[in-house]
Amino acid sequence: MKVLVLNAGSSSVKFTLYTMKNETVLAKGMVERVGIENPQLIYKHSDGREVTEIINIKDHTGAIKSICDKLLDPEIGVMADRSEVEAIGHRVVHAGEKLTRPELVTDEVKNIIRECVPMCPLHNPANLAGIEACEKIFPGVPNVAVFDTAFHQTMKPSAFLYAIPYEFYEKYGIRKYGFHGTSHDFVSSAAADYIGAKREDLKIITCHLGNGCSIAAIENGNVIDTSMGLTPLEGLVMGTRSGDLDPAVIIHMFNLGMSVAEVDNLLNKKSGLLGVSGVSSDMRDILKAEAEGNERAARAKRMFILRIVKYIGAYYTVLGGADLIVFTGGVGEYSLPVRKQIMEKLGALGIVVDETRNEACFGKAGLISADNSKCKVLVMPTNEELMIARDVRRSLSK
Amino acid sequence: MKVLVLNAGSSSVKFTLYTMKNETVLAKGMVERVGIENPQLIYKHSDGREVTEIINIKDHTGAIKSICDKLLDPEIGVMADRSEVEAIGHRVVHAGEKLTRPELVTDEVKNIIRECVPMCPLHNPANLAGIEACEKIFPGVPNVAVFDTAFHQTMKPSAFLYAIPYEFYEKYGIRKYGFHGTSHDFVSSAAADYIGAKREDLKIITCHLGNGCSIAAIENGNVIDTSMGLTPLEGLVMGTRSGDLDPAVIIHMFNLGMSVAEVDNLLNKKSGLLGVSGVSSDMRDILKAEAEGNERAARAKRMFILRIVKYIGAYYTVLGGADLIVFTGGVGEYSLPVRKQIMEKLGALGIVVDETRNEACFGKAGLISADNSKCKVLVMPTNEELMIARDVRRSLSK
Repeated sequence: MKVLVLNAGSSSVKFTLYTMKNETVLAKGMVERVGIENPQLIYKHSDGREVTEIINIKDHTGAIKSICDKLLDPEIGVMADRSEVEAIGHRVVHAGEKLTRPELVTDEVKNIIRECVPMCPLHNPANLAGIEACEKIFPGVPNVAVFDTAFHQTMKPSAFLYAIPYEFYEKYGIRKYGFHGTSHDFVSSAAADYIGAKREDLKIITCHLGNGCSIAAIENGNVIDTSMGLTPLEGLVMGTRSGDLDPAVIIHMFNLGMSVAEVDNLLNKKSGLLGVSGVSSDMRDILKAEAEGNERAARAKRMFILRIVKYIGAYYTVLGGADLIVFTGGVGEYSLPVRKQIMEKLGALGIVVDETRNEACFGKAGLISADNSKCKVLVMPTNEELMIARDVRRSLSK
Repeated sequence: MKVLVLNAGSSSVKFTLYTMKNETVLAKGMVERVGIENPQLIYKHSDGREVTEIINIKDHTGAIKSICDKLLDPEIGVMADRSEVEAIGHRVVHAGEKLTRPELVTDEVKNIIRECVPMCPLHNPANLAGIEACEKIFPGVPNVAVFDTAFHQTMKPSAFLYAIPYEFYEKYGIRKYGFHGTSHDFVSSAAADYIGAKREDLKIITCHLGNGCSIAAIENGNVIDTSMGLTPLEGLVMGTRSGDLDPAVIIHMFNLGMSVAEVDNLLNKKSGLLGVSGVSSDMRDILKAEAEGNERAARAKRMFILRIVKYIGAYYTVLGGADLIVFTGGVGEYSLPVRKQIMEKLGALGIVVDETRNEACFGKAGLISADNSKCKVLVMPTNEELMIARDVRRSLSK
């Protein structure tokens, strides 16, 4: 069984083709600059060959056609016929609270994705465009939508409601949804496997620290709370997103004469590590600048760490303790000093870093807590594409 | 030495007259409906006598004159001459980051209070009006301003900055300031005294739970973090305030067609316990409605508790443990089931409630944790007026 996994963003389409026999990647890559000038396709064969070429496409349908053509290419392709694709998995960001697991795409599912556009105006329309393109290009092939929000839908109302008039939930669906669900699901499951336990028996705090960052508190496989909210803006300090703010800061910004679009852009694109440091949204650059004596970069890093420490403390308490803390995402997998400095601030919870283990764990799974740590701390690389491919297989086998 | 303590709000002036010899209240009360029709004066003599009368005043100066007249009243007054008032203490909400302790009022101090009006448009103008009225009514008597923000000014930048572009701090002073400082200062100090320790040696988490609610993490007498921010809107679920929200919720509200003023009013006046329950902003009403089977009231209470538990967990972790947790404010001092339910969720931190002690502690100071609790939990009634009177004495003795 071959499964194509697609992540259609507003101006890009990422793809991975799996053979599910042994969960192997056959080819992967992306089309960039969809709908902008000079779109290009980056294609990587599993044998290491790679091509990048400017392509002549206008939209998501064109992008997915060009991906399909490349997969069929006699030279660098990996399929003889497009019918070899037995199913397609689509990452969809927002499904509200109606869809709580991966779904075979139907008109009803598409309608729900459409209904959630106001809450996710950038991603959901692109995700839908990707699905509709596949319906044309791969007629008869099942499409499965895998939602970023789905895994979090076990939260109780006391965790997901905001303390605003209740009608805003009833009428407009304003509540905490949570995101990165596929990643939190994948790494919590993989981390439980790694220590030879069942996720159903554990209390786990998963820290997805990439350009976007979120934390989830997971008890017996159910999300109890998570840091992202109505949108992926809430919670941790991120690459370019502010995370938590006094709501009055936004009112203050309007009173300073900023427009809704300006505030939205500022909080999503110009804040976080980038906004505080003035240097970069990338933790590698922040650490480099800090080492060179840049005080604002050092401060941005401290804020990033402090926010994570506060959320871990909060979730540890809400869960009534934790068996596992899991780091994933670019920063979580590769930023050794950040992990170490977070763990050093968790002493009140009985957590102890093992510096040698932490140094040894660069972009791979491993234990980084000391043997006398009250709670195990693991690094677990995330693999949202593989999780989507597995979700596709599970959905179709029902 | 007699000290008059004033809290001038937008439509009210509260007063307490102390004799500082033994810190005794001679008289107290308030003028309500200042600047509105039918203003009235409520005056309470320390001997228990009380009068309420409609008065003919237009503004804060009129209100304070009527208070002064009553204090001098031959029947129910407590002074023979207004010169007996040796100093006046004023609660002032916002002093930004320039003033970090109580200050004898000068033109410069008044200018700073004025500069902070954009960040505190409701309270600071009223506080200033109270000061200026006293300058007329009690010429030559020193006025001391005691700021809600002052005690929190020991926070480090990594705790008080928001993760937005740094220029918003530099140009507009947008940062976390914290409020209820006088209360957090008073109860942390009194709680340390109560257990026979020095505040300078302790890690303390103070929970001020009234109509407004805030938490502070205090180490060796210095605030490390607190839940209120640029304004008193951030943080906990309050009587009518939302506390923490995804910043995108506000953007979403604007996209729904609401104006800045409507959003501001909604989040400050119609949210919190009131907004979620639809019943009341008062925890006593919420508990009553819950007992009668009202599910939304029960949910509002659970949200209120969950938010507090998360903040306590976060601050416990940031402080590296805690020696004392202190409850104060109307809910903190009187709402036995809420205190109990909060403490029951703090088991992961080694905290154990003593139910008998908790039941015994209604509106008075006392220990409510069990002897095997890892951290002592105390109730300590707040007394911001007395704290202001003491601050006045300390400021003048310098």
